[in-house]
Amino acid sequence: MLTIADVREAADRIRPVVHRTPVFTSETLDRMAGRSLFFKCELFQKTGSFKYRGASNAVRKLDDAAAAKGVVTHSSGNHGQALALAAKVRGIPATIVMPASASPVKKAAILGYGASVVESGPSLTDREEKVAELRAKSGAAMIPPFDHPDVIAGQGTAALELLEDVPTLDAVVAPIGGGGLISGFTLAAKGFNPNCRVFGAEPTGASAAAQSKTAGDRVKLDSTTSIADGLLANYVGQLTWPYIRDQVETVFTVTEEQIVAAMRLVWERMKLLIEPSAAVGVAVVLSEPFRALTGLSNVGIVLCGGNVALDKLYW
Amino acid sequence: MLTIADVREAADRIRPVVHRTPVFTSETLDRMAGRSLFFKCELFQKTGSFKYRGASNAVRKLDDAAAAKGVVTHSSGNHGQALALAAKVRGIPATIVMPASASPVKKAAILGYGASVVESGPSLTDREEKVAELRAKSGAAMIPPFDHPDVIAGQGTAALELLEDVPTLDAVVAPIGGGGLISGFTLAAKGFNPNCRVFGAEPTGASAAAQSKTAGDRVKLDSTTSIADGLLANYVGQLTWPYIRDQVETVFTVTEEQIVAAMRLVWERMKLLIEPSAAVGVAVVLSEPFRALTGLSNVGIVLCGGNVALDKLYW
Repeated sequence: MLTIADVREAADRIRPVVHRTPVFTSETLDRMAGRSLFFKCELFQKTGSFKYRGASNAVRKLDDAAAAKGVVTHSSGNHGQALALAAKVRGIPATIVMPASASPVKKAAILGYGASVVESGPSLTDREEKVAELRAKSGAAMIPPFDHPDVIAGQGTAALELLEDVPTLDAVVAPIGGGGLISGFTLAAKGFNPNCRVFGAEPTGASAAAQSKTAGDRVKLDSTTSIADGLLANYVGQLTWPYIRDQVETVFTVTEEQIVAAMRLVWERMKLLIEPSAAVGVAVVLSEPFRALTGLSNVGIVLCGGNVALDKLYW
Repeated sequence: MLTIADVREAADRIRPVVHRTPVFTSETLDRMAGRSLFFKCELFQKTGSFKYRGASNAVRKLDDAAAAKGVVTHSSGNHGQALALAAKVRGIPATIVMPASASPVKKAAILGYGASVVESGPSLTDREEKVAELRAKSGAAMIPPFDHPDVIAGQGTAALELLEDVPTLDAVVAPIGGGGLISGFTLAAKGFNPNCRVFGAEPTGASAAAQSKTAGDRVKLDSTTSIADGLLANYVGQLTWPYIRDQVETVFTVTEEQIVAAMRLVWERMKLLIEPSAAVGVAVVLSEPFRALTGLSNVGIVLCGGNVALDKLYW
């Protein structure tokens, strides 16, 4: 079982390569939320999302012999870019398995960080088989997007910085895809202050964590749909589930309309170009069920990333 | 003649009400510019632009008797919002004269800050007549958008903060509309370090300052056109012209295509939602003529605002 000590070690390990991102506030959003909000700006993190923390922690923790064989993952999103840069910074090869249908822009970004891209079929099985095949040849270490202790501890460093900057937080809110971010947040927040409450945020169209909480066991969704493309996980992880089950107080869900409105609000009023996944937590704190909670004067929210295709608007 | 002492006094005067905005950097843009860039993030200033500095300085400097009569200006843009909030914070009335054709969004923003909006005809003469009429009735102080010593000194406080944070700057780059911002920047930068060079940035479609520099005298343009709507001045000010003439080394002009490309780049790579006027300076430092300049290791740029209509994209 991980503890905050693992998060602190991760923070020391990745400090030379990550940005300590700023914490922003907004009087307008405070008024709308009915409390003081503190936004941890991971959209400014290298590669444009918090994923660079977990990927860097995992890559830097490899011993030299393992590292020399490189790293591999499957991801069509932020984790792929994060692992590509983390490997480049350590000077080791990275291979990112992506479905042939993945966006050319994301493929180009990963190639731009010097990683190799290998195409696979679209299903999770297709991607996992391709990763296994590559590992059999190269011996590369698999760095999964969320279900890995080093990844979880790395993501927790964002919460540690947030709490160091705002020690009076009564709660933190993080979006949930596979659960890596919220597990790291739970570790850091509860370790920092056992009374700090932790809330999850999901789109209604990709609410594996909320449904699992209700069922009392991991629920696997047949399909997911949301503009919050970083949160389209069919199930939460094996390692992340216990954090969600036992330490996340509630997982709130929000509609696509709420997500779009929150994204536009943050763009317009805070001038921060967040991606839809980052708007999910904002939509939660502005929602009636969350506003009805008592005892929450100061709430931290992670604006998890800013990688949004700018060839169209969402409204 | 103003000096850096006036800027320092303005800084003390407005400190309780303005944000000290952060300075951002970007490895990607440094590579593209061929030097180290330091971005003063006035898009995060209250009301979304640096204009709040000058307006606040002017409003706070009024004695109580004058203040009680209120303030007035004509502006369909950032200065109107800035003056409205500055007056609200001091608890005095503000009236903003806007052409009947002004955007309803901007009108709503000004009303939202508690100011009155009075409509006028579209020409400068129409607007000036309306202001004179209002002043004859109320005795309100006219706070113009740029050609006023307190406004100039107030805008200079952005440069002062930038130089305090990055004392090694070799140059600063600021966009020019009427010239208030660059005059304040010149005062602060030359006062802080006489060797600090000052460059101006204009759209080719609104290049009154560049043309005036060439002519050696103030040129009045018959018309202006650019998506950089904050810079659509037909001429630079009487008070601002001596700074531009004598202390701004060069005013560079950039095309609409360069402005749009720079704006998209800052949105995509820096995740900062800048307005077109703020992209003009970025476009300049990325342009060949600027890249060809020598002796400029560290260059400061002001991202002057983030008030951009988000109902369409510009590319």
